[in-house]
Amino acid sequence: MGLFTKDIQSMDDLFMHTLQDIYYAENKIAKSLPDMISKVSNPELKQGLQSHLQETKQHVSRLEQVFKMLNVKASSVTCPAIDGILEEADEVSGEVADKNVLDAAIIASGQAVEHYEITRYGSLIAWAKEMGRKDVADLLASTLEEEKAADKKLTMVAESRVNKLAEGKSRPM
Amino acid sequence: MGLFTKDIQSMDDLFMHTLQDIYYAENKIAKSLPDMISKVSNPELKQGLQSHLQETKQHVSRLEQVFKMLNVKASSVTCPAIDGILEEADEVSGEVADKNVLDAAIIASGQAVEHYEITRYGSLIAWAKEMGRKDVADLLASTLEEEKAADKKLTMVAESRVNKLAEGKSRPM
Repeated sequence: MGLFTKDIQSMDDLFMHTLQDIYYAENKIAKSLPDMISKVSNPELKQGLQSHLQETKQHVSRLEQVFKMLNVKASSVTCPAIDGILEEADEVSGEVADKNVLDAAIIASGQAVEHYEITRYGSLIAWAKEMGRKDVADLLASTLEEEKAADKKLTMVAESRVNKLAEGKSRPM
Repeated sequence: MGLFTKDIQSMDDLFMHTLQDIYYAENKIAKSLPDMISKVSNPELKQGLQSHLQETKQHVSRLEQVFKMLNVKASSVTCPAIDGILEEADEVSGEVADKNVLDAAIIASGQAVEHYEITRYGSLIAWAKEMGRKDVADLLASTLEEEKAADKKLTMVAESRVNKLAEGKSRPM
């Protein structure tokens, strides 16, 4: 942050700042996912998060590719938003003992992470188009589609979790 | 947080914790919006955020109604996620001098806020249904629809902002 000057002067600067923000976020998510996965009981949820971890690593590489396309060295700025979302995920999961409730809490935390990414990639894509960089917009759009699919997958796992519980309850003891 | 016990034992507890979290978030958003609005130049964006401030106040009342329906006194738990999202919004907008770039940054921050709310209300509605409280789910669903509409409205304002800039550029000086 400049002490006397404002650092974001143009749409290019705003794009770069947000790119560095999501680069920080994706790296932090990649570091946090293994711990989240280790707490999960539902096999479908575990497998879904494991494959999303692989995707997340690819999202990091794609962002590095975008930096390269813009002739800028890849770098991060601290992203208080993702720090807060992951801190909250960690706090809540630390408070839950029951396996089924913990799975529900982890699904919700995962969706909060996905929605943060969806909104940031949405802005980046719009701004890349505005700056006439369709190539950059297209690359980021592949990541956005995967984030949206990950969010939908979590909703489906949540629904199947509830259905299985209902079946369990209606079975004779 | 319990020192030796885990505080979230059941889906009811998880629901209540998340309700207190979004109650904190909505109240904090209602407090932050006037400052955001004061920084906006685009009249359409200003008007959109002003009407969302009115909606936000209604969302707070609806949450108080949900607490009442569950026979629990309305209360909050600190929500590090919204704290982080709003901190980031404030940091970024403090770095921007140009009015047009500032509007773009505020639209993006507003959408990050909306997406956080969309994901939390989505989880709360699913859990309310799971607990057999369709009345609670229906009330929260009206808020969810308004959050989704607010997000779409911000996308539309972003598009019209870019179109107006393009028209400005193609006009003879």
